[in-house]
Amino acid sequence: MKILDIFGTLKKDIDYVEQRLYSSIDVDQKLLSETSLHLLKAGGKRLRPVFVLLGGKFGHYDLERLLHVAVPLELIHSASLVHDDVIDDASTRRGKATVKSKWDNKIAMYTGDYIYAKALTLVSKLENPMIHRILSKALVQMSIGEMEQIRDFFNTDQSIRNYLLRIRRKTALLIAVSCQLGAVAAEAPLEISRLLYRYGYNVGMAFQIRDDLLDLKGTEKQLGKPPGSDMRQGNITLPVLYALQDPALREELLQELANIHAKDGSADTSRAIQMILGSDGIQKAEQLADRYIEKALAALHHLKDNKAKKHLQEIAYFVNRRAY
Amino acid sequence: MKILDIFGTLKKDIDYVEQRLYSSIDVDQKLLSETSLHLLKAGGKRLRPVFVLLGGKFGHYDLERLLHVAVPLELIHSASLVHDDVIDDASTRRGKATVKSKWDNKIAMYTGDYIYAKALTLVSKLENPMIHRILSKALVQMSIGEMEQIRDFFNTDQSIRNYLLRIRRKTALLIAVSCQLGAVAAEAPLEISRLLYRYGYNVGMAFQIRDDLLDLKGTEKQLGKPPGSDMRQGNITLPVLYALQDPALREELLQELANIHAKDGSADTSRAIQMILGSDGIQKAEQLADRYIEKALAALHHLKDNKAKKHLQEIAYFVNRRAY
Repeated sequence: MKILDIFGTLKKDIDYVEQRLYSSIDVDQKLLSETSLHLLKAGGKRLRPVFVLLGGKFGHYDLERLLHVAVPLELIHSASLVHDDVIDDASTRRGKATVKSKWDNKIAMYTGDYIYAKALTLVSKLENPMIHRILSKALVQMSIGEMEQIRDFFNTDQSIRNYLLRIRRKTALLIAVSCQLGAVAAEAPLEISRLLYRYGYNVGMAFQIRDDLLDLKGTEKQLGKPPGSDMRQGNITLPVLYALQDPALREELLQELANIHAKDGSADTSRAIQMILGSDGIQKAEQLADRYIEKALAALHHLKDNKAKKHLQEIAYFVNRRAY
Repeated sequence: MKILDIFGTLKKDIDYVEQRLYSSIDVDQKLLSETSLHLLKAGGKRLRPVFVLLGGKFGHYDLERLLHVAVPLELIHSASLVHDDVIDDASTRRGKATVKSKWDNKIAMYTGDYIYAKALTLVSKLENPMIHRILSKALVQMSIGEMEQIRDFFNTDQSIRNYLLRIRRKTALLIAVSCQLGAVAAEAPLEISRLLYRYGYNVGMAFQIRDDLLDLKGTEKQLGKPPGSDMRQGNITLPVLYALQDPALREELLQELANIHAKDGSADTSRAIQMILGSDGIQKAEQLADRYIEKALAALHHLKDNKAKKHLQEIAYFVNRRAY
């Protein structure tokens, strides 16, 4: 099942977002136009636009207006991915060559810069200063998160709290802001946009934990890249941190992680993965993801019952089952 | 003579901008705080903030308000430099180690992303949507210019028009917008902000032509890096393009540029520099810079006579003599 199968009603609007996403990056500069299009065409679940539209359903739903939030948020997400791929030295994403591997790191950097700037041009057409404030604050937090990721590479001493703070900045904030800004752009009451923010934040945390789990549990076909990529890049995720808490495993796993580190991106991670899958790290991480989903659903509880609320509930369940 | 010696009156306000520049990037993340501070402390002429303040003198001069434009514009400029250094593989700038050489390319990329995001947070505090629109459009053009720079590396077939379009995006636009937004933030009449834009655009063009000339004529001490850096990186500048128009020089210079290209950043450019200095490329480029300065002064002509106008005239003359 694909996430869009959940709701047929929004399909037309999401298709329109997709179309506008492509036209938004249209530019009379061949290289930039090619790299940007390659990046966007590599796909993605368009989760952020979906959240913007659903958030908009709690106010005066005006698709054109919501597009000025939905398109930029997806662009910002894409720009952050293209820069991430440089850092992670990733050659594929979603089964397709990354910009940095098809072209090079420098071109990937400027492609990100361009898409980011384009996103801001679209947002600047909205006159509500609250939108600019919310968005720019989130961007600062995201960029701090990116640097923290570099700092934390192969740091096996980091705390769970540290991990959670990092994924909050890396993933949860932009999803939270997507839900919130949909409501803000549709002039929904402040209290509603706050609840949607809380929903999005918790769904985003669960989403990233599930993503990190999938990198250990998934197959290459499911992932579009070899499993264990996070570990190979030095990204120490929640199940790993939990597994390291097990005294019976700790020393051997630390040694295995040190070996992976020494091989600088080309290591075989299958043994480390087996160790983690054999620990209670997976279950503990799944339990934490469940808790975030519960909190997300609780935030929705105060919202009026409508189709959008139902969709948001379905997405929360879907995110927590994710195997795609 | 330093640019700030031109005007004592603004000194106090510029010092305050400097102070706010440092506090603006303050962040509770050690690495990011170090790299950002290193970048800003490497100095610079703070030309963009100076232009914002001078533009502000044509309306209701409110330093706090102008700071919300002046600080972000300098931050955006700094962010673009740190990304440029990655592209140019530059180990020093203004005689100091670049972020990419003191740390690495990845850290430089995220430092730029962070400073850029920080700039937007500050701008977002201003409620005038015109400011956001002007700025975000300039950012898009700047990022297109960056990609064009990559495309044009070592392209000896490019036209003068191509060069001018590139430096327009790379340099002139942000300076134009600095002058303009100072006036806009100070609520000066639209006509005045347009004239200031035109002044800034022309000064910016002359500034970049002079910068490109200096890279050929200057000493390592003046430049803070070895002369001929542009050529070594493949950046084909105006004097080179003019020299290539000379049939007596063309073939030999093309061969020399091909040799430099083949050496991939480590070439001795002294012979190529001698050839260009011996051509009429220098004089022609200087004449074009003069023409831009004349246009800049003509734009000021329609503004009322005040101290700020006098300063802007002095800066135009100063830019055109620049040997710093």
